[in-house]
Amino acid sequence: MVELKHLTGLRDLSRKDIEDILNIALHLEEVCSGKKVFNLLENKVLTTLFYEPSTRTRLSFETAMHRLGGKVISVADAKTTSSAWKGENIPDTIRTIDNYTDAIAIRHSESGAAEMAASYSRVPILNAGDGTNEHPTQGLLDLLTIKKERGTIDGLKIVLVGDLKHTRSTNSLTLGLSNFNVELTLVSPPGFETSQWILDILKKRNIPYTRTDDLRGSVKNADVVYVCRIQKERLADPHEYDKIKGTYVLNRSLLEGASRIITVMHHLPRVGELDEDVDDYPGAAYFRQPFNGVMVRAALLAILLNRVPESF
Amino acid sequence: MVELKHLTGLRDLSRKDIEDILNIALHLEEVCSGKKVFNLLENKVLTTLFYEPSTRTRLSFETAMHRLGGKVISVADAKTTSSAWKGENIPDTIRTIDNYTDAIAIRHSESGAAEMAASYSRVPILNAGDGTNEHPTQGLLDLLTIKKERGTIDGLKIVLVGDLKHTRSTNSLTLGLSNFNVELTLVSPPGFETSQWILDILKKRNIPYTRTDDLRGSVKNADVVYVCRIQKERLADPHEYDKIKGTYVLNRSLLEGASRIITVMHHLPRVGELDEDVDDYPGAAYFRQPFNGVMVRAALLAILLNRVPESF
Amino acid sequence: MVELKHLTGLRDLSRKDIEDILNIALHLEEVCSGKKVFNLLENKVLTTLFYEPSTRTRLSFETAMHRLGGKVISVADAKTTSSAWKGENIPDTIRTIDNYTDAIAIRHSESGAAEMAASYSRVPILNAGDGTNEHPTQGLLDLLTIKKERGTIDGLKIVLVGDLKHTRSTNSLTLGLSNFNVELTLVSPPGFETSQWILDILKKRNIPYTRTDDLRGSVKNADVVYVCRIQKERLADPHEYDKIKGTYVLNRSLLEGASRIITVMHHLPRVGELDEDVDDYPGAAYFRQPFNGVMVRAALLAILLNRVPESF
Repeated sequence: MVELKHLTGLRDLSRKDIEDILNIALHLEEVCSGKKVFNLLENKVLTTLFYEPSTRTRLSFETAMHRLGGKVISVADAKTTSSAWKGENIPDTIRTIDNYTDAIAIRHSESGAAEMAASYSRVPILNAGDGTNEHPTQGLLDLLTIKKERGTIDGLKIVLVGDLKHTRSTNSLTLGLSNFNVELTLVSPPGFETSQWILDILKKRNIPYTRTDDLRGSVKNADVVYVCRIQKERLADPHEYDKIKGTYVLNRSLLEGASRIITVMHHLPRVGELDEDVDDYPGAAYFRQPFNGVMVRAALLAILLNRVPESF
Repeated sequence: MVELKHLTGLRDLSRKDIEDILNIALHLEEVCSGKKVFNLLENKVLTTLFYEPSTRTRLSFETAMHRLGGKVISVADAKTTSSAWKGENIPDTIRTIDNYTDAIAIRHSESGAAEMAASYSRVPILNAGDGTNEHPTQGLLDLLTIKKERGTIDGLKIVLVGDLKHTRSTNSLTLGLSNFNVELTLVSPPGFETSQWILDILKKRNIPYTRTDDLRGSVKNADVVYVCRIQKERLADPHEYDKIKGTYVLNRSLLEGASRIITVMHHLPRVGELDEDVDDYPGAAYFRQPFNGVMVRAALLAILLNRVPESF
Repeated sequence: MVELKHLTGLRDLSRKDIEDILNIALHLEEVCSGKKVFNLLENKVLTTLFYEPSTRTRLSFETAMHRLGGKVISVADAKTTSSAWKGENIPDTIRTIDNYTDAIAIRHSESGAAEMAASYSRVPILNAGDGTNEHPTQGLLDLLTIKKERGTIDGLKIVLVGDLKHTRSTNSLTLGLSNFNVELTLVSPPGFETSQWILDILKKRNIPYTRTDDLRGSVKNADVVYVCRIQKERLADPHEYDKIKGTYVLNRSLLEGASRIITVMHHLPRVGELDEDVDDYPGAAYFRQPFNGVMVRAALLAILLNRVPESF
């Protein structure tokens, strides 16, 4: 069974690790929806420490903890309501907060922040997104979504569309997928391509990938299309955003050019790059996707707090 | 017994619906004060999603949930700390959050926001105030306050004073009262009168009402005086506020002109329109009023989550 | 056994009161770390009402409550997300919130705010810091830290270094220490000295103290050195900060001038006045200190809510 001290990224997780996590998550499905009561983490306290705005990641972590009978303390806006405002750095903050809690989920605008937190923390750190680096719990919930929607991950043709340079979610998803037998198509505007370090790992792990600007052609042959938002807040020059937005928009007509039902995913929020006419397309999975985040985060909390039942 | 899928306003509730809600609230009084333990909503998760600042409504919802043994996840400042900041609209936010929770209490600056949320949500929506439209849980707690303070709602002379145009609380209260045999007196500065659609409903339901600018005369004959704040944040022109503030101030001397004890209510916060010399007036109910909010919200959560005990 | 209605400061607590609080805290040590389950405050609701930013005080109160099985409602940023924004004053806010909760921990930028809250509240008030006046739970956790690190408080030589004028934590610590047989050395830049009212109490209670600017000499003979941050946010003139910062910096070389191991404390966050080379000094207690805050706050909640077990 997978053993983890922290979860800072998917870079170093094995296929077996990922399969274990998804398996534990599936065991917790009815607990996460509230249908079944299972107070696995009773009296445990999770801290959500968010230096960047978030709805879904923070709430989803907190619900996962509550569904397992645990407690939550939260800093939803660490930049203005915490001691960061007084000039405190991450190591000092972590060495304080680990006195209060059994695990810390941290989001930060700097790449490497979660790794740094882990190196100072006496309790497990869960990376809830660090700069343009990784967002591993999102990557895992995306893998779970693919598994639930398609029955398998192996053998699929997966298209990633959008700002693949700044989107930490697709970094983690790509790293996760690199443990499976998939074919990747990477569609992004010039200057927004997947980072070289990610491509290097794909090569090393013999994952076939294509880079193209032909969205229509890519969609036609896909099993899964994953759309991502231009990460406006990461761009130094706002004009860059205006040039690029609207370049690739997934809509119903593109999807209906394909002969089969395609699974459509998005990390959300969307801002124009995924047309609302897709919402009632049979393969649209993006409003089911967030629930898988509760399952995956519940599984990770159980793993990191050493409470996975033997029966799982 | 009342059955509700959502609570977006009091406009469409019947007298029987309201009486059921107040009755259930009264059953939960000792639970809401913490005197009695009754974990009716164990393992249920409520989300408080607030796009506008709030102390009493949010905290009161959260305490109601806690007193019933439930859990809470919260976005206290959705405008800046959530994905709204990234440009997400209400339908997308709701279709995400309903994956995490069993009910959502939403406050928003746009009239109709709760109705829109309800039309997209897979879980019950509770309107915690939408623009200048309705604030139904406030309206219900005001009805409960009148019932507790006076023993009855029927037969009372009720005066509403202040900014009746922009105050959603008095909209909901007036709609609620329109199911009972009451006489209403509406006192407001010119330009701040009760909206026509509310008056139309009063007419349709044969509720006698008077509009006047004579506060002293109105108070003299009242059973209940409900004072409301000028909703400064709803005014386009700040000078409009300066012209109007201080126009109608309820104070001890006005109250002592009456021959009986008048019940004095205010939705709070107050900013000058209710003098502090009223605080120890025997009929001053406005610091007891907030507790009735816990009772009413606990009742609504029990109703919307289908957990009202048969014995109630 | 100590009995308290509110905790607004350490000014009026006796030695016996303080010893009782520390003793109860020590009984709760394993509960506060999560090793032992003890739902002493089940179904109780604590409100954390913070008008100034905080990480450690708020989270530590909330964890204390959770470890004892209680519930929490929170206003982390009362200045912008609550009714204060609409112009509500403390008495009105308190007379509202006390309807929702069993106790209120309040932080405010005005000295005397907690005392004012206590005079209006129907539930216990815990001062979580009021202006430049007191921060009694910090003072108590500092006393507990000294007791745990040194085995005793009596007989110690204690040096306080830094902005002793604006630091409410050292006010409370000094008041607490004034009940024990200690020798105090107060080291601060000119204009940042301990307030006269504190010195008056030291004199009245016959506590010997020295004021000096010789940090090196003071450290040499100390048992405990308590470093505090210049409270930049309390200074009217920002240039004053630049003149003073860096004046007194505690570092490893100063500590190694002493013949014994000194206990080093800091209320945190630090901003330069305590060098990182002290972090692995054997006497560095400042990253253990925050846990003592959970213990002390748990003890205070048990006391104020009348739930201290007879066996303690």
